[in-house]
Amino acid sequence: MNRKIGDQTFELVNKPTIIGTGCFVGEKEAFGPMGKYFDGYSSDDTLGQDSFEKAERKFFERAINIALRKTRLKPTDIDYMIGGDILNQLVSTNYTARDFQIPLIGVYGACSTMSESLALASGLMSGGVGKIVLCLTGSHFSAAERQYRNPLEFGNQRQTYSQWTATGAGCVILGSGEGPKITKIAFGKVTDYGVSDIANMGAAMAPAAYQVLKAFFIDTKTTPSDYDIIATGDLGKLGSDILRDLLIKDGYYLGQNYMDCGHSLFNSEQKTFQGGSGAGCSAIVFSSYLYEKLKNKDINKMLLVATGALMSTTLNQQGETIPCVAHVVEIMNLKEKVNG
Amino acid sequence: MNRKIGDQTFELVNKPTIIGTGCFVGEKEAFGPMGKYFDGYSSDDTLGQDSFEKAERKFFERAINIALRKTRLKPTDIDYMIGGDILNQLVSTNYTARDFQIPLIGVYGACSTMSESLALASGLMSGGVGKIVLCLTGSHFSAAERQYRNPLEFGNQRQTYSQWTATGAGCVILGSGEGPKITKIAFGKVTDYGVSDIANMGAAMAPAAYQVLKAFFIDTKTTPSDYDIIATGDLGKLGSDILRDLLIKDGYYLGQNYMDCGHSLFNSEQKTFQGGSGAGCSAIVFSSYLYEKLKNKDINKMLLVATGALMSTTLNQQGETIPCVAHVVEIMNLKEKVNG
Repeated sequence: MNRKIGDQTFELVNKPTIIGTGCFVGEKEAFGPMGKYFDGYSSDDTLGQDSFEKAERKFFERAINIALRKTRLKPTDIDYMIGGDILNQLVSTNYTARDFQIPLIGVYGACSTMSESLALASGLMSGGVGKIVLCLTGSHFSAAERQYRNPLEFGNQRQTYSQWTATGAGCVILGSGEGPKITKIAFGKVTDYGVSDIANMGAAMAPAAYQVLKAFFIDTKTTPSDYDIIATGDLGKLGSDILRDLLIKDGYYLGQNYMDCGHSLFNSEQKTFQGGSGAGCSAIVFSSYLYEKLKNKDINKMLLVATGALMSTTLNQQGETIPCVAHVVEIMNLKEKVNG
Repeated sequence: MNRKIGDQTFELVNKPTIIGTGCFVGEKEAFGPMGKYFDGYSSDDTLGQDSFEKAERKFFERAINIALRKTRLKPTDIDYMIGGDILNQLVSTNYTARDFQIPLIGVYGACSTMSESLALASGLMSGGVGKIVLCLTGSHFSAAERQYRNPLEFGNQRQTYSQWTATGAGCVILGSGEGPKITKIAFGKVTDYGVSDIANMGAAMAPAAYQVLKAFFIDTKTTPSDYDIIATGDLGKLGSDILRDLLIKDGYYLGQNYMDCGHSLFNSEQKTFQGGSGAGCSAIVFSSYLYEKLKNKDINKMLLVATGALMSTTLNQQGETIPCVAHVVEIMNLKEKVNG
């Protein structure tokens, strides 16, 4: 049986293996520093569809198809999929699940969706609920921008502390056998330090990452230096700096082993200011760059801490601040499994 | 270890117990046929808040507080909560989780949320991930109506095949010990028979209930007559009739033991046409009437099949049809646990 250690962390006994991933991204993402790690990209961000919302779904579809091809699995081999997206009613996920006819557990955690899905899937699988499970999320700049902020045609000036919603989808398939395994999970508490500016998501989300990371370090009696990489979701440059500041006060120093998927996704010439965001951001960086490093054993112990700003335009307009959440997934190459 | 039986069903080994529930509803619900079973109601559907969206959250808060009081638990006793709602970005759930500081797993399944949450929670707990878990959902007529259809001030005429979003929230706490237990779960496939009328949700959702119920009957080699009650979420009168028709073709007859939470929530004088809907509908009926019947052993074996229309106004306006999903939770009073 799995067991809880400390306040928020669960240690998994039967640890699911990441058996394959797939991701498909937009052109801007493909020309960023992570470009060479992605499975594919398109310079047409509509992928032939007549709306950005319908296009987003096609990114999801391609990510799944790549992951299925790499793992030589068929949709009917998958017990169920867990996923969500940042469009209202998770339309990309729902219509994708309809088209693939895989049972769906829809989750909403905004940009924390990849961590949330991996944590849930591995928690369930560790108890025998599912042998092969697909985790999926993604986002689309143009669909997100018009839902959460302004229509693109409005041509508003972007704040220097803003981030850029990643266009792309990432898919992670969990199973058994050799490979990097999910060893511990921790579900975060919704944290709200009072930020109400919907352009400043890094500042809003950093306290949520701090909440769950600190709990995880205490629960597991570890420190940041115990990990080869600690990757937050999409705090961006500013949010990452805030997270460092928050943790250092408790004596936890995030060093060279710390990275943020959002901050790593674009280079400074791409004018995304603080970096990438969106549910797709950590999904595409984890399913490409980080998974490759795990598979090649360049890293053997990492934390993925995707962070979500659970922001609603309606409640924001009604004067509410932005509640945020983050979930921790510990992934390891276990020594006993290394053959040679 | 839990195991999969057939295509979509999981049999739980360590079966979580429903240790308590709480629900709080609006006036219309309180004066319907289920009224006497609810824990509390308010004739002020704003609960003192300045918006319907903020009011919805207060219903959630009251449902949790009632359930905590009945089970003599504190928020810190809860390992995590699983829940969601039908407002964009699950605002009611997120802000409630913020206020209670219980780790949150946010899920979106529209009106299938209570089944989805119970299935997920019991799947996780059965493997040792969590000892006490809170499941929560709800809805608010006035908040839902203006998000999904029209502002109330518009005063549109309602279609005779429409349903009425329930105002209220239901909370179910899972733990261990004596009481009704969750014994099997099945996650549904997203099903879409091509309905695009956002007022006709019963017709849209019935095929989703059919998909997962048929799979469950085949997987478990049971028939409808094996259960004391089979309760669908909120198909309403019309949707229930469609579900009966779909199942009878496969030889499954839904008899007197079949009920629909939506159809049962209001009486015909209340002018809700086909009955109740909204994530709160099955949540309040299950956490009151059905739980009481289980506790008193008036029923000993039931299926809860909450159904969700995953409909998006954006995609609907772009010409898409409505994808739907339903999840099955089997709940039993196990004989070996009956003392006297």
